[in-house]
Amino acid sequence: MSNPQKNRTTVEIYGQQYVILGKESLSHIRLVASLVDDKMREISSKNPSLSVNKLAVLTAVNAVNDYIMIKEQLERLQNELKKEKD
Amino acid sequence: MSNPQKNRTTVEIYGQQYVILGKESLSHIRLVASLVDDKMREISSKNPSLSVNKLAVLTAVNAVNDYIMIKEQLERLQNELKKEKD
Repeated sequence: MSNPQKNRTTVEIYGQQYVILGKESLSHIRLVASLVDDKMREISSKNPSLSVNKLAVLTAVNAVNDYIMIKEQLERLQNELKKEKD
Repeated sequence: MSNPQKNRTTVEIYGQQYVILGKESLSHIRLVASLVDDKMREISSKNPSLSVNKLAVLTAVNAVNDYIMIKEQLERLQNELKKEKD
Protein backbone atom coordinates (compact mmCIF):
# COMPACT_ATOMS: atom_id res chain seq x y z
CA MET A 1 0.00 0.00 0.00
CA SER A 2 2.71 2.53 -0.91
CA ASN A 3 1.00 4.23 -3.85
CA PRO A 4 0.90 8.04 -3.54
CA GLN A 5 -2.81 8.10 -4.50
CA LYS A 6 -4.25 6.58 -1.37
CA ASN A 7 -7.84 6.17 -0.33
CA ARG A 8 -8.63 6.80 3.31
CA THR A 9 -11.62 5.08 4.81
CA THR A 10 -12.88 4.38 8.30
CA VAL A 11 -14.00 0.82 8.98
CA GLU A 12 -15.30 -0.93 12.06
CA ILE A 13 -13.70 -4.21 13.09
CA TYR A 14 -14.84 -6.04 16.20
CA GLY A 15 -16.48 -2.91 17.59
CA GLN A 16 -13.43 -0.68 17.13
CA GLN A 17 -12.95 1.95 14.42
CA TYR A 18 -9.86 1.97 12.21
CA VAL A 19 -8.70 4.45 9.58
CA ILE A 20 -7.32 2.43 6.69
CA LEU A 21 -5.12 3.95 4.01
CA GLY A 22 -4.70 2.04 0.78
CA LYS A 23 -4.39 2.41 -2.94
CA GLU A 24 -7.20 -0.15 -3.25
CA SER A 25 -10.82 0.93 -3.81
CA LEU A 26 -13.04 1.78 -0.86
CA SER A 27 -15.16 -1.29 -1.57
CA HIS A 28 -12.04 -3.50 -1.49
CA ILE A 29 -10.92 -1.98 1.83
CA ARG A 30 -14.42 -2.50 3.27
CA LEU A 31 -14.44 -6.12 2.06
CA VAL A 32 -11.08 -6.80 3.75
CA ALA A 33 -12.29 -5.20 7.01
CA SER A 34 -15.48 -7.21 6.90
CA LEU A 35 -13.53 -10.48 6.38
CA VAL A 36 -11.27 -9.67 9.35
CA ASP A 37 -14.33 -8.86 11.47
CA ASP A 38 -16.01 -12.15 10.44
CA LYS A 39 -12.87 -14.18 11.19
CA MET A 40 -12.42 -12.55 14.62
CA ARG A 41 -16.03 -13.36 15.50
CA GLU A 42 -15.62 -16.95 14.25
CA ILE A 43 -12.45 -17.54 16.30
CA SER A 44 -14.02 -15.80 19.32
CA SER A 45 -17.12 -18.00 19.20
CA LYS A 46 -14.89 -21.09 19.34
CA ASN A 47 -12.65 -19.65 22.08
CA PRO A 48 -14.81 -17.28 24.17
CA SER A 49 -12.13 -16.82 26.85
CA LEU A 50 -9.54 -15.30 24.46
CA SER A 51 -8.54 -11.67 24.99
CA VAL A 52 -9.18 -9.33 22.03
CA ASN A 53 -5.45 -9.04 21.73
CA LYS A 54 -4.82 -12.76 21.31
CA LEU A 55 -7.92 -13.03 19.15
CA ALA A 56 -6.53 -10.45 16.72
CA VAL A 57 -3.10 -12.14 16.62
CA LEU A 58 -4.71 -15.54 15.93
CA THR A 59 -6.78 -13.92 13.17
CA ALA A 60 -3.56 -12.62 11.64
CA VAL A 61 -1.99 -16.10 11.96
CA ASN A 62 -5.00 -17.56 10.18
CA ALA A 63 -4.86 -15.00 7.37
CA VAL A 64 -1.10 -15.39 6.84
CA ASN A 65 -1.57 -19.16 6.75
CA ASP A 66 -4.28 -18.84 4.06
CA TYR A 67 -2.00 -16.46 2.17
CA ILE A 68 0.93 -18.88 2.14
CA MET A 69 -1.26 -21.82 1.09
CA ILE A 70 -2.73 -19.93 -1.86
CA LYS A 71 0.67 -18.50 -2.79
CA GLU A 72 2.05 -22.05 -3.02
CA GLN A 73 -0.94 -23.03 -5.19
CA LEU A 74 -0.24 -20.06 -7.49
CA GLU A 75 3.46 -20.95 -7.72
CA ARG A 76 2.65 -24.59 -8.59
CA LEU A 77 0.32 -23.41 -11.37
CA GLN A 78 2.92 -20.96 -12.68
CA ASN A 79 5.56 -23.73 -12.71
CA GLU A 80 3.22 -26.09 -14.57
CA LEU A 81 2.57 -23.39 -17.15
CA LYS A 82 6.27 -22.75 -17.52
CA LYS A 83 6.93 -26.48 -18.09
CA GLU A 84 4.20 -26.62 -20.73
CA LYS A 85 5.76 -23.69 -22.59
CA ASP A 86 9.35 -25.06 -22.40
CA MET B 1 -7.23 -26.54 10.01
CA SER B 2 -9.96 -29.14 10.69
CA ASN B 3 -7.94 -32.29 10.05
CA PRO B 4 -8.10 -34.83 12.90
CA GLN B 5 -4.30 -35.32 12.78
CA LYS B 6 -3.26 -31.98 14.17
CA ASN B 7 0.14 -30.74 15.17
CA ARG B 8 0.32 -28.65 18.31
CA THR B 9 3.13 -26.19 18.66
CA THR B 10 3.89 -23.21 20.87
CA VAL B 11 5.13 -20.11 19.07
CA GLU B 12 6.04 -16.64 20.25
CA ILE B 13 4.51 -13.67 18.48
CA TYR B 14 5.28 -10.13 19.60
CA GLY B 15 6.48 -11.33 23.01
CA GLN B 16 3.42 -13.45 23.72
CA GLN B 17 3.17 -17.25 23.54
CA TYR B 18 0.46 -18.98 21.51
CA VAL B 19 -0.43 -22.64 21.16
CA ILE B 20 -1.22 -23.25 17.50
CA LEU B 21 -3.06 -26.33 16.31
CA GLY B 22 -2.86 -27.18 12.64
CA LYS B 23 -2.60 -30.03 10.21
CA GLU B 24 0.36 -28.22 8.67
CA SER B 25 3.94 -29.16 9.56
CA LEU B 26 5.63 -27.61 12.58
CA SER B 27 8.02 -25.74 10.29
CA HIS B 28 5.07 -24.30 8.36
CA ILE B 29 3.37 -23.17 11.59
CA ARG B 30 6.61 -21.59 12.80
CA LEU B 31 7.05 -19.81 9.45
CA VAL B 32 3.53 -18.36 9.67
CA ALA B 33 4.11 -17.20 13.26
CA SER B 34 7.40 -15.61 12.29
CA LEU B 35 5.76 -13.74 9.38
CA VAL B 36 3.03 -12.42 11.70
CA ASP B 37 5.68 -11.35 14.25
CA ASP B 38 7.68 -9.57 11.51
CA LYS B 39 4.59 -7.79 10.17
CA MET B 40 3.56 -6.65 13.66
CA ARG B 41 7.03 -5.23 14.28
CA GLU B 42 7.03 -3.52 10.86
CA ILE B 43 3.62 -1.87 11.45
CA SER B 44 4.61 -0.96 15.01
CA SER B 45 7.83 0.73 13.88
CA LYS B 46 5.80 2.94 11.52
CA ASN B 47 3.08 3.64 14.13
CA PRO B 48 4.75 3.51 17.56
CA SER B 49 1.66 4.87 19.36
CA LEU B 50 -0.62 1.96 18.33
CA SER B 51 -1.91 -0.35 21.05
CA VAL B 52 -0.97 -4.03 20.68
CA ASN B 53 -4.62 -4.67 20.09
CA LYS B 54 -4.96 -2.31 17.12
CA LEU B 55 -1.56 -3.43 15.88
CA ALA B 56 -2.74 -7.04 15.74
CA VAL B 57 -5.98 -6.11 13.98
CA LEU B 58 -4.09 -4.03 11.40
CA THR B 59 -1.71 -6.96 10.87
CA ALA B 60 -4.74 -9.15 10.19
CA VAL B 61 -6.13 -6.52 7.78
CA ASN B 62 -2.81 -6.50 5.98
CA ALA B 63 -2.66 -10.29 5.72
CA VAL B 64 -6.27 -10.61 4.50
CA ASN B 65 -5.57 -7.91 1.92
CA ASP B 66 -2.50 -9.81 0.65
CA TYR B 67 -4.61 -12.99 0.58
CA ILE B 68 -7.36 -11.41 -1.56
CA MET B 69 -4.86 -9.87 -3.99
CA ILE B 70 -3.06 -13.18 -4.56
CA LYS B 71 -6.40 -15.06 -4.75
CA GLU B 72 -7.49 -12.72 -7.56
CA GLN B 73 -4.16 -13.31 -9.31
CA LEU B 74 -4.69 -17.08 -9.05
CA GLU B 75 -8.25 -16.80 -10.39
CA ARG B 76 -7.09 -14.71 -13.37
CA LEU B 77 -4.46 -17.31 -14.20
CA GLN B 78 -6.98 -20.15 -13.86
CA ASN B 79 -9.41 -18.31 -16.18
CA GLU B 80 -6.68 -17.73 -18.75
CA LEU B 81 -5.83 -21.43 -18.68
CA LYS B 82 -9.48 -22.35 -19.07
CA LYS B 83 -9.81 -20.05 -22.09
CA GLU B 84 -6.71 -21.58 -23.69
CA LYS B 85 -8.16 -25.08 -23.26
CA ASP B 86 -11.63 -24.15 -24.62
